Amino acid sequence: MEKGELRFIGRVTRVEEDISTIEIYPEFCEGLYRLDEYTHLNILFWFHQRDDNEHRNVLRVIPRRHGETEERGVFASHSPSRPNPIGLTVVELVSIDGCTLMVKGLDAFEGSPVVDIKPYQK
Amino acid sequence: MEKGELRFIGRVTRVEEDISTIEIYPEFCEGLYRLDEYTHLNILFWFHQRDDNEHRNVLRVIPRRHGETEERGVFASHSPSRPNPIGLTVVELVSIDGCTLMVKGLDAFEGSPVVDIKPYQK
Repeated sequence: MEKGELRFIGRVTRVEEDISTIEIYPEFCEGLYRLDEYTHLNILFWFHQRDDNEHRNVLRVIPRRHGETEERGVFASHSPSRPNPIGLTVVELVSIDGCTLMVKGLDAFEGSPVVDIKPYQK
Repeated sequence: MEKGELRFIGRVTRVEEDISTIEIYPEFCEGLYRLDEYTHLNILFWFHQRDDNEHRNVLRVIPRRHGETEERGVFASHSPSRPNPIGLTVVELVSIDGCTLMVKGLDAFEGSPVVDIKPYQK
């Protein structure tokens, strides 16, 4: 099977209804230069609690969290149980202090490894 | 360093101005069930031509393709040279035939491995 290797660039350290926090590891921090020019970001993160064979072999789900009662394919869902446990969430950037991002709207669990950050254009 | 492992779920087989094609590998094809209920998708793919130490250590770029002349951090750019060479592109879903997706607006190179597909809500 063809594979790719990810290096985690940081971690979700705090999730709150209002402001959530992402810490970027010092060795990747320079990559944040001029990120403050954007109001919204795509955050790619790792569903680390689903990174096992059982959850990564799921191909159909019932997205009950979204009020559904019928099955759909994982790629037609946002289920964290999927072949590659990558989550994607759009956040509003509130501020950056060194290697720490304060954001609004982060739909991820505390402790999730961060995979990538990209500007989001509405 | 903390790492994650990706299994590629398919490949971009054709990129054209109008319709592009993505082939999902047979073992993941069931995950496409009911994907046709969406008009737009997020496609996560692998910048396989940048998957080496040189390109993965880039932290600042000048995004000339976007007409820029000054440096910015990779996370404030869509550069394919980045710590985790994952691309994100929003496409319009035209049709699905078995394991083959026909889409519009795919901003990826032919041959790119596909990492994930998620519904995109405008």
